[in-house]
Amino acid sequence: MTSPLDLPVDVERLWQSLEDFAAIGATPGGGVHRLSLSEEDGRARASLAELARQSGLTVRRDGIGNLFAIRHGSDPQLPAVLMGSHLDSQPAGGRYDGAYGVLAGLEVLRTLTDREIVTRRSVILANWTNEEGARFAPSMMGSAVYAGNLALDEALLARDAEGVSVAEALDVLGERGELPVSAFALHRSFEVHIEQGPVLEREGLDVGIVHGVQALRWLDVTLTGSPGHAGTVPQRDRADALLAAARVLQLVAELADRIDPRIRATAGALRVWPNSRNVIPGQVRMELDLRHPDVARLDDAETLVRDLAAELAAGTPVHAEVRCVLDQPAVDFDPATIGLVRRAADAAGTRHRSLVSGAGHDAAQLAAVVPTAMAFIPCVDGLSHHEREDITPAWSAAGVRVLGAAVLAATAEPDTAEPHAVAPDTIGGTP
Amino acid sequence: MTSPLDLPVDVERLWQSLEDFAAIGATPGGGVHRLSLSEEDGRARASLAELARQSGLTVRRDGIGNLFAIRHGSDPQLPAVLMGSHLDSQPAGGRYDGAYGVLAGLEVLRTLTDREIVTRRSVILANWTNEEGARFAPSMMGSAVYAGNLALDEALLARDAEGVSVAEALDVLGERGELPVSAFALHRSFEVHIEQGPVLEREGLDVGIVHGVQALRWLDVTLTGSPGHAGTVPQRDRADALLAAARVLQLVAELADRIDPRIRATAGALRVWPNSRNVIPGQVRMELDLRHPDVARLDDAETLVRDLAAELAAGTPVHAEVRCVLDQPAVDFDPATIGLVRRAADAAGTRHRSLVSGAGHDAAQLAAVVPTAMAFIPCVDGLSHHEREDITPAWSAAGVRVLGAAVLAATAEPDTAEPHAVAPDTIGGTP
Repeated sequence: MTSPLDLPVDVERLWQSLEDFAAIGATPGGGVHRLSLSEEDGRARASLAELARQSGLTVRRDGIGNLFAIRHGSDPQLPAVLMGSHLDSQPAGGRYDGAYGVLAGLEVLRTLTDREIVTRRSVILANWTNEEGARFAPSMMGSAVYAGNLALDEALLARDAEGVSVAEALDVLGERGELPVSAFALHRSFEVHIEQGPVLEREGLDVGIVHGVQALRWLDVTLTGSPGHAGTVPQRDRADALLAAARVLQLVAELADRIDPRIRATAGALRVWPNSRNVIPGQVRMELDLRHPDVARLDDAETLVRDLAAELAAGTPVHAEVRCVLDQPAVDFDPATIGLVRRAADAAGTRHRSLVSGAGHDAAQLAAVVPTAMAFIPCVDGLSHHEREDITPAWSAAGVRVLGAAVLAATAEPDTAEPHAVAPDTIGGTP
Repeated sequence: MTSPLDLPVDVERLWQSLEDFAAIGATPGGGVHRLSLSEEDGRARASLAELARQSGLTVRRDGIGNLFAIRHGSDPQLPAVLMGSHLDSQPAGGRYDGAYGVLAGLEVLRTLTDREIVTRRSVILANWTNEEGARFAPSMMGSAVYAGNLALDEALLARDAEGVSVAEALDVLGERGELPVSAFALHRSFEVHIEQGPVLEREGLDVGIVHGVQALRWLDVTLTGSPGHAGTVPQRDRADALLAAARVLQLVAELADRIDPRIRATAGALRVWPNSRNVIPGQVRMELDLRHPDVARLDDAETLVRDLAAELAAGTPVHAEVRCVLDQPAVDFDPATIGLVRRAADAAGTRHRSLVSGAGHDAAQLAAVVPTAMAFIPCVDGLSHHEREDITPAWSAAGVRVLGAAVLAATAEPDTAEPHAVAPDTIGGTP
């Protein structure tokens, strides 16, 4: 295995790219509103393709609109090294979530070209379609289709709130491409991303070496009581769904103590019916988000929620129903690929630590089909999915240096691993 | 004082009237949608006026659209006896809330006319404008203006969600009348209404003798934390506004035990921001409704809520703000008028008990200017403000018999009380 090489990336050019892309769909609050396959997303995609072509890269798209910028290696028969993230955003989201990883990858490719560095393996940058899932469900759509975790036909049929399908939105933008899905034979895959949490900044570190993504479980809890007049019905005669919901919230607050401090337990959404001050709440719907590196701890948490629901049903007039609507296992990234990232982080002189990702990422989908790892950079105050999401130029430089060194090391690796996908010559085709 | 007289009301005619008026603005779910001064309310008012004229009554309206049907007494100089309630409803409300009181009053007047009964005092039926407050705020508008608790000019300027003012809505219907407000000299005032709670039905009673209306206080509680990514921010770093709200809900659940079982404590409305499953709630707004016959117990409850807010602000990263947005004192009805109702309930052979009203009523406004009392009839399952609101013919008969007997007794009382309002001869004017 080759030791990490230093890639002389242009950190000022990267920062300027981040500023330029932050202007596409910019919000008054300093964030971006760039929903997947919207007009704004179309402009960001067009910008990326144009910059890639200016750097002599080959631009291709596949059937779900994943956009690839390919720099051919000296031995294009070898499985390629992939970098990827996403340019779409949450509604009124941040300017770095996703865009940082795409533009850091672009900077790596531009530097390889500027310095006329010949790599044995091809290097591919991917902009994955609809990572956020804010307009079309599910999230991580493009990378899931690429990895075979989601059928292309099913993804194309997903519709937004206005009834527009993914297929229609792709065609409006001209972003439905000719490549089949899973088009490339891949050697390793990397993603850099902002942490979206407070750990790295608080510990004064530059980089997080991401071991994997924690398991995720979504529970919907519906509490059904009976509405009534707030002034007339005695407390003992009430079936108040909101007071029952408070007991579920209390349990959510206790999960870190009762199960493990590493659990992430959130009741992010709660809706009351009829939601009028002087009417006793008749029904409450709650949406829980539970995460932990070990799926067994999520089983424990779900059991406690179901036990409480049974206790409410048996001991109070409020009926509780618990439904699991999403159950994603934990993802462990590839140890050898993690090792490349760590050596790159050392070589770049960064202060770093290991982390498990709390959020889902395209890399978690890719991990099913190619040895994968991620690096995080800090973000200010841990803020993300927020217009005030922010990073520093120094953090952005640390991340791109680690990415560049890890990718460069991977391109030079001998081909010991089995290629996972279809014929490698699909890399070399013309658009 | 005269003992109660039996008035041979026609309970089948009353039931038919209830059915007829339930058809005006009927909803598919069996309720009525008859917002104040809407086209539906206009039809109900026109129907009432027409039925009153057919019975030889004098129909008058005042400046806020209160509609009066007057049956002159043999001594029109004496202060009159008033009955009143309202024909407007909640959106998709019940068919008996308000309408029962108006149509029971109409039945009393029709019976007096059919039987050619001469009363010394005049008897007046009032349909008060906008009791519900669902379209225009505040509620109990017409009776509040009549009682001098709300200025006519202010009430006329109130606008609905579409920007239509009360004055404009009155003029569209031709319901703005020529009478000044507080036009009548009144001796006593009565209102019959459905209980809107479960007590009478559960105890197998026909009638509730209402002593007064409990005090009411509305508190708005705003909890402000900080939003964040549900997957990444450790529990100890969170400022989760919804988990803080759960502690306020827990307190609401405990108020009956900590203060008095008679308290009515409701968190009827709660809104979460941004209300997305995988975002830690940044802000929660709650609307509390607190009621008790003794305002001092509401002071106790408000103190506990404010103490908890201070405790949250001092011990957690969530800031809590408590604002009192409505503070209505308790109303005690007039003992002599209550006595008339009780004797009428005895004379009608009903099973009855004393109650304090949990809900507000027009009678609570009238009580400020004329000796007032109320009678309740049961409603099925305590349901009200609900399309399934229901009563039985037997209950409707019990209420109208009590009303008729109480009114008849009041008309025969000697004039010991001071008339409270303007010249009694305004009763006798022509429309």
